[in-house]
Amino acid sequence: MIPTLLLVVLLSLLSPSSADDFCVADLSRPTTPAGYSCKKLSTVTANDFVYSGLRFPGNLTDPLFHFAVNPGSSSQIPGLNGLGISIARIDIAKDGAVPLHSHPDASEIYIVTRGTVIAGFISSNTVYSKSLFKGDVIVFPQGLLHFQVEAGHEPALGISAFSSSNPGLQFTSRSIFGNSLPSKLVEKVTLLDDGEVRKLKRVFGGSG
Amino acid sequence: MIPTLLLVVLLSLLSPSSADDFCVADLSRPTTPAGYSCKKLSTVTANDFVYSGLRFPGNLTDPLFHFAVNPGSSSQIPGLNGLGISIARIDIAKDGAVPLHSHPDASEIYIVTRGTVIAGFISSNTVYSKSLFKGDVIVFPQGLLHFQVEAGHEPALGISAFSSSNPGLQFTSRSIFGNSLPSKLVEKVTLLDDGEVRKLKRVFGGSG
Amino acid sequence: MIPTLLLVVLLSLLSPSSADDFCVADLSRPTTPAGYSCKKLSTVTANDFVYSGLRFPGNLTDPLFHFAVNPGSSSQIPGLNGLGISIARIDIAKDGAVPLHSHPDASEIYIVTRGTVIAGFISSNTVYSKSLFKGDVIVFPQGLLHFQVEAGHEPALGISAFSSSNPGLQFTSRSIFGNSLPSKLVEKVTLLDDGEVRKLKRVFGGSG
Amino acid sequence: MIPTLLLVVLLSLLSPSSADDFCVADLSRPTTPAGYSCKKLSTVTANDFVYSGLRFPGNLTDPLFHFAVNPGSSSQIPGLNGLGISIARIDIAKDGAVPLHSHPDASEIYIVTRGTVIAGFISSNTVYSKSLFKGDVIVFPQGLLHFQVEAGHEPALGISAFSSSNPGLQFTSRSIFGNSLPSKLVEKVTLLDDGEVRKLKRVFGGSG
Amino acid sequence: MIPTLLLVVLLSLLSPSSADDFCVADLSRPTTPAGYSCKKLSTVTANDFVYSGLRFPGNLTDPLFHFAVNPGSSSQIPGLNGLGISIARIDIAKDGAVPLHSHPDASEIYIVTRGTVIAGFISSNTVYSKSLFKGDVIVFPQGLLHFQVEAGHEPALGISAFSSSNPGLQFTSRSIFGNSLPSKLVEKVTLLDDGEVRKLKRVFGGSG
Amino acid sequence: MIPTLLLVVLLSLLSPSSADDFCVADLSRPTTPAGYSCKKLSTVTANDFVYSGLRFPGNLTDPLFHFAVNPGSSSQIPGLNGLGISIARIDIAKDGAVPLHSHPDASEIYIVTRGTVIAGFISSNTVYSKSLFKGDVIVFPQGLLHFQVEAGHEPALGISAFSSSNPGLQFTSRSIFGNSLPSKLVEKVTLLDDGEVRKLKRVFGGSG
Repeated sequence: MIPTLLLVVLLSLLSPSSADDFCVADLSRPTTPAGYSCKKLSTVTANDFVYSGLRFPGNLTDPLFHFAVNPGSSSQIPGLNGLGISIARIDIAKDGAVPLHSHPDASEIYIVTRGTVIAGFISSNTVYSKSLFKGDVIVFPQGLLHFQVEAGHEPALGISAFSSSNPGLQFTSRSIFGNSLPSKLVEKVTLLDDGEVRKLKRVFGGSG
Repeated sequence: MIPTLLLVVLLSLLSPSSADDFCVADLSRPTTPAGYSCKKLSTVTANDFVYSGLRFPGNLTDPLFHFAVNPGSSSQIPGLNGLGISIARIDIAKDGAVPLHSHPDASEIYIVTRGTVIAGFISSNTVYSKSLFKGDVIVFPQGLLHFQVEAGHEPALGISAFSSSNPGLQFTSRSIFGNSLPSKLVEKVTLLDDGEVRKLKRVFGGSG
Repeated sequence: MIPTLLLVVLLSLLSPSSADDFCVADLSRPTTPAGYSCKKLSTVTANDFVYSGLRFPGNLTDPLFHFAVNPGSSSQIPGLNGLGISIARIDIAKDGAVPLHSHPDASEIYIVTRGTVIAGFISSNTVYSKSLFKGDVIVFPQGLLHFQVEAGHEPALGISAFSSSNPGLQFTSRSIFGNSLPSKLVEKVTLLDDGEVRKLKRVFGGSG
Repeated sequence: MIPTLLLVVLLSLLSPSSADDFCVADLSRPTTPAGYSCKKLSTVTANDFVYSGLRFPGNLTDPLFHFAVNPGSSSQIPGLNGLGISIARIDIAKDGAVPLHSHPDASEIYIVTRGTVIAGFISSNTVYSKSLFKGDVIVFPQGLLHFQVEAGHEPALGISAFSSSNPGLQFTSRSIFGNSLPSKLVEKVTLLDDGEVRKLKRVFGGSG
Repeated sequence: MIPTLLLVVLLSLLSPSSADDFCVADLSRPTTPAGYSCKKLSTVTANDFVYSGLRFPGNLTDPLFHFAVNPGSSSQIPGLNGLGISIARIDIAKDGAVPLHSHPDASEIYIVTRGTVIAGFISSNTVYSKSLFKGDVIVFPQGLLHFQVEAGHEPALGISAFSSSNPGLQFTSRSIFGNSLPSKLVEKVTLLDDGEVRKLKRVFGGSG
Repeated sequence: MIPTLLLVVLLSLLSPSSADDFCVADLSRPTTPAGYSCKKLSTVTANDFVYSGLRFPGNLTDPLFHFAVNPGSSSQIPGLNGLGISIARIDIAKDGAVPLHSHPDASEIYIVTRGTVIAGFISSNTVYSKSLFKGDVIVFPQGLLHFQVEAGHEPALGISAFSSSNPGLQFTSRSIFGNSLPSKLVEKVTLLDDGEVRKLKRVFGGSG
């Protein structure tokens, strides 16, 4: 008969530290190009890998486009750090939209779990777009402009997953109009009208 | 006034081919370590990126564990090829379970969209496990053993995303018992009893 | 004295094939997510690694923005295949601009070799922008919107390098207006005016 | 004649720091998803790259399976940090075995340097297995279950290399039985008998 | 009418931190295998991405080969950190040369912007070499020995880009002769003559 | 009682193809930057993962340095394809050496299994070198010049593993002298004497 206690000790010495099985984010330290530093293994719990924050919509309702993104990235779920994947809940009000945007460092897969959504992305001179119903999925390849528009009779709910633990997000109109980029320069690099640029700078809170 | 037609031609010459914006799988050709070869751009359509196959459960019900996995990988959604992400629908019958398994080449994030599930994974001598309710998320780091057990009063539905366009899947019991590995060898490398091994070889359809 | 001929034979047998020192693109075969297939080593010459195509500006002058990009990617320089780097020559006419754009899969470093250029990129609500003179360099991180505007008294010349062998390129205005995306949908996901959208669809050759 | 001392100074200024030629682990700092932080170059010596710890077997003998793994990972050999490779010495007593296990984040190549070993791995419903004699090699692809069983007339010695600087290790039986996972849950996700589970929980020191 | 100030607040809360859009090097902290730690976003400015240091030649003139490399890596341009690309200015005096060298962790693309240069690299038993004139480009695949020799009637100027944010650099003669490697050992592993080794050890400042 | 045969069918339909668990090289097809194309799964056997070719020394004895490298890369062991690891057996005759060389795309870990070896590598102006005895290990970081010299009283035997499935190999003297690079050019980029260059061109079978 093997003395159990001794055996446990032996086996835990024998086994390598699980430090390399995962790297739970230490949110209090600087990030690196590969993500956050890892918490000490002794402080890791199941709560680092489980998240209830997606039970409800993001608590901000965008007043222009009428949608809310509720992210589940490594900043919210520290156990995602270094794993190259994350999630988000996307609520779109009736007649609302997720405005044109791209993720500079991640591809996305989006599934509609309630409602109807017209979704698509743009590559070169081609639009790849389709109406999605409950259970349908669409892929948005990395870095390409894409959008989701509510197109049914009720608010739409969806789940997106990203090929990055902490994906970036660049909303096109807000990036063009919501900052200090001079209007003349915006016009030069987009061919938009001066009046339109000035109006949308006001809408998106830009200056210049 | 700019002659529009000429301009379109000029611009389409100017712009690089979108061949590098994505690489839609040509399922008829051999795979490579980086995925499938790419289809010709001229044959790509929105249907390569959109998938309705997850509207319904996987059409197989596992008679032992009472669950069904319905994958949305690059084999089903060619537009996922090379993007390092995929999706699956997971149905668990009341009192059913997704048996102990691992993904050799992918991390997973799992969200419960209906029902209650006890889910967890194992790293070294520690179990990270929790009850998940509708809207809750759990992370399964790459290659680690994990499981999902229906723990409420109704069938459970969930969505998983994976950090691979075509993740592998290794069910533990089936990998141990469902093949020609000799019983004596199984016993030696697991310490399971001879009777248990022989019984489960019958259950999982193994020989030897 | 060592018999030289025999030695050469021995040494060339001893040495591994140089197939892994590089992978020159076979442009006649399908691409993969990792790039083109490799040409047979016996057909590789110095010409696969050397390129004179950047001696002169790209032979198209964009009539809207007055610039020309002359790429040196793996499609032009097969020896770049798989190496994760490429180059381009960028000519901007006096008062011209490289319009707002992003590279979905590459970071860029740009050096001005003649003239004066205002260049910058946008991240969240911040513009990072500066006047560049001959010899100055700017970094455009992957996937972010950026632009270059001639700002001196003469045409500007620059060289860009990219962290991809075959980078994609998405011009913002052209992606929004130069295709079949319905005007109503464009307006909904950008908040641009109907009149503006219709006007720019004509300019960029779009329909719908 | 060139003044040598001056030249050395000039050349060392000219040459870039070797900081990027390697990144020797600073074991005293937190890890990151890409490995340990780097030691200051001025404190690096040949001893960071050389290791004598594999001259002898691992100093623990597992009392259940009769084997010992002696790792040479970045925790033991700081110079391996960030290089994506490591090594281990594997001693198996006569009639012993390396029990069924997987490496969640690494492929392995194993060479027998003394004795005879039956080794194999499992993928889907197939076992890839063979008897290995002195000098024979076998590949275990990333994340897949594999085993090594002494099958000759003497203790077996082998060397393994891994495609990770600090590979994880998950022993199947110990992961199933050596922790607090409730017996009923283990039975549900494996179909093992209650008696078997309870017995092996005692053997592997588990509770619940 | 939307209250602009409120909107800006809402939008900036909505948008994710741009921390993942880039990772500007904090040069004061230890490096990691993936590069430097990131500066706090609030301290990042356009100056982290713009660099004027390449306006002039490197301020060292190598007295043996008559060239100067002026690097623009993440140590000089913190915004390059983690982006996998960097740049350098290369001046070669008339009749000078960039001596035989390799980059252990980067491929290079080199463009001649003034003068004439014979450039090439070596793979197995083959030299890939050519005369380059103003505007010509050559690729040096990762880790392979290469060289650039001024071959016209004036000093040559060129720009190189590298597939690493902070590439290493190993000059062959200096690595062989400019250190404490014993002469006898050098001779044994190169077949060079004892007299030659001793002479070049003096030239390159080596000992032993 | 479950009908076993039916169950096996169900389970094999349920399980994903193992195509992504590994990618065994199809040596008859062109390579890609990520390695060989994959063989059809139905043709894969254990022999694709097992190799007996390292039982004996490489069957070439280098007449200049008195060593033999016997590689076990994906060209010899198709199952290694895409896994980022390989192996080699290295025999050094008494008083022989593995001459100065580098691997452009791989780090190496080397263990001495018989005899005594002085081994080391060079980074910037520093040599990291040590005497290795049976069981000792040394790391050679990617792309750096390194060497192994027999330093005991008997032939030395060692095993190396590489962080690439098919590593390249560049012997320094042979790369400098064993090809058509003109002597004058060699002298210019190395500072070696004309007499020495011409002599070693004869030794290594070079011309020019």
